[in-house]
Amino acid sequence: MLSADLLGIFFFAVSGSLLAARKGFDIIGSLALAYMTGLGGGIVRDLIIDQGVPNVFVNTIYLLPPFLAAIAVYLMSTHLQKLRYFISLFDAGGLALFCITGTLVALEAGIEPIVAVLLGVATACGGGLLRDITANETPGLFNPRDLYAVPAFLGASVTVLLEMTGWFNLLTATITAVAVFVMRMLAVRFKWSAPLAVRGWSRPSLRLPRSRADNAK
Amino acid sequence: MLSADLLGIFFFAVSGSLLAARKGFDIIGSLALAYMTGLGGGIVRDLIIDQGVPNVFVNTIYLLPPFLAAIAVYLMSTHLQKLRYFISLFDAGGLALFCITGTLVALEAGIEPIVAVLLGVATACGGGLLRDITANETPGLFNPRDLYAVPAFLGASVTVLLEMTGWFNLLTATITAVAVFVMRMLAVRFKWSAPLAVRGWSRPSLRLPRSRADNAK
Amino acid sequence: MLSADLLGIFFFAVSGSLLAARKGFDIIGSLALAYMTGLGGGIVRDLIIDQGVPNVFVNTIYLLPPFLAAIAVYLMSTHLQKLRYFISLFDAGGLALFCITGTLVALEAGIEPIVAVLLGVATACGGGLLRDITANETPGLFNPRDLYAVPAFLGASVTVLLEMTGWFNLLTATITAVAVFVMRMLAVRFKWSAPLAVRGWSRPSLRLPRSRADNAK
Repeated sequence: MLSADLLGIFFFAVSGSLLAARKGFDIIGSLALAYMTGLGGGIVRDLIIDQGVPNVFVNTIYLLPPFLAAIAVYLMSTHLQKLRYFISLFDAGGLALFCITGTLVALEAGIEPIVAVLLGVATACGGGLLRDITANETPGLFNPRDLYAVPAFLGASVTVLLEMTGWFNLLTATITAVAVFVMRMLAVRFKWSAPLAVRGWSRPSLRLPRSRADNAK
Repeated sequence: MLSADLLGIFFFAVSGSLLAARKGFDIIGSLALAYMTGLGGGIVRDLIIDQGVPNVFVNTIYLLPPFLAAIAVYLMSTHLQKLRYFISLFDAGGLALFCITGTLVALEAGIEPIVAVLLGVATACGGGLLRDITANETPGLFNPRDLYAVPAFLGASVTVLLEMTGWFNLLTATITAVAVFVMRMLAVRFKWSAPLAVRGWSRPSLRLPRSRADNAK
Repeated sequence: MLSADLLGIFFFAVSGSLLAARKGFDIIGSLALAYMTGLGGGIVRDLIIDQGVPNVFVNTIYLLPPFLAAIAVYLMSTHLQKLRYFISLFDAGGLALFCITGTLVALEAGIEPIVAVLLGVATACGGGLLRDITANETPGLFNPRDLYAVPAFLGASVTVLLEMTGWFNLLTATITAVAVFVMRMLAVRFKWSAPLAVRGWSRPSLRLPRSRADNAK
């Protein structure tokens, strides 16, 4: 599970550094967003389950993936146009791994299954939420034309079911992660969306005026 | 006190879901803001007073009010124009209950009275602050033409006084909550305001240019 | 070390109240930003190192500096034009003291030296980050034409080296704090900047369109 955690951290950290690149931040901003996105969700989860100092601050190996991510983004040679897509891609990788590891950690700490699902979703969505808020972006989580939390919710639920039935192993975990990743990327590709917050309202009537909508991007 | 806590969570959660409606978010965004607004302040308080895993993650009943709030908002049939007012209304209900329960929890954890007041205010204002920040709104807490923290501060102070004099009971607590709620709604209605951050400055000279002021709304 | 902590809190709190003044917030917003900026970074650090209730909520003396800061800003008679500079000045004072005290507290809690450096940087940058995020400003930390985290990183690293070699004392600590402060103010004065997040990109091509850049200020 450590390697899944480290890989998830790396994916999220790359998405943070890529966002720093897109916003024109410097290498320090890239490092800061890499650490915040990669480690933020897990730190919040560890604070909540109250098992002492969060893992990240005990085991120094956790400091490596965000550092490597910022270096990798620094050395890449891509075009600004493709960044939005790559951010989604790496973010989806982190989401797929974190909704599983986050849920597992919560279960192991003795959290109730149904709460463990929510905590897994919070871990998976937390890093990206912190990234978007600090970089002054409207959180992808709240985008009305996108499905972000649902794949994480399904992944966390399946993880709890697998754990409770004793079927959780490397194979089933990998299948779950891949399914969450694919579902998330399909949601990005085909602009899947959930019903609006209020039943009666049609989507167009809620559209923001052009200037404010651009602003919110 | 549990029922006051659950009711406060429900009120705050409704304000979160209504804000999601006003911003045109989908049902997932509505659920996310409901949970964040309803449970955010209490989670931060519980982390600080260090009494193990926050209540919300132990007792699954806490998961219900935000869920019901998002459903209720989904099923309602109101007009966009009235939303701003309803958000204030439910937010005031949460504020009135949380400044009391937040202060009580802090006192019971052995926090000094004067610090318990601040922690009560932080609990009461924390959920709404998280809601506004994540939804990319300028926090109501900082609005120079509104009085948000003062009713919470008075409610928390009265709660400490009632506890220390042994007069705290269902009746005095209810009176305090109603007084805080009424004071907050009067502040909204009559645009009560506190002095500015700097004595010498007059309000108009500080006015933001029109476009930026609209933007900050 | 308590006095250094209190002084750092006061400096950060003044920067928070000055920002409240610049944004046209009222005295309540000034108090709120003073407490958040002054105490936020330390609270997050104390939650992470898991030594019980954060110091700030145990020792009531910590409540004094932000209160005094908001009063001082209320009574001052300065011009709006100079505020940006004064905010940087007090912020630099807080940064210089917090990167040292934050690192020390982490080391004393038994955190690994290399992690203690990061936690010291997080403590030093955390208050200002919270201030900028809640006041709806783009965090100074991410400004591509400014060097904010680097002086804090050097200060935290020197603190760890001094502690490990046994050379940490009032004199060396003071020299470190002054050096961090001077380096930070030079960075502000001469607009020092780090390389961008991506190697190949030139600064001008990343420039945001005028309107959005102004907006992000």
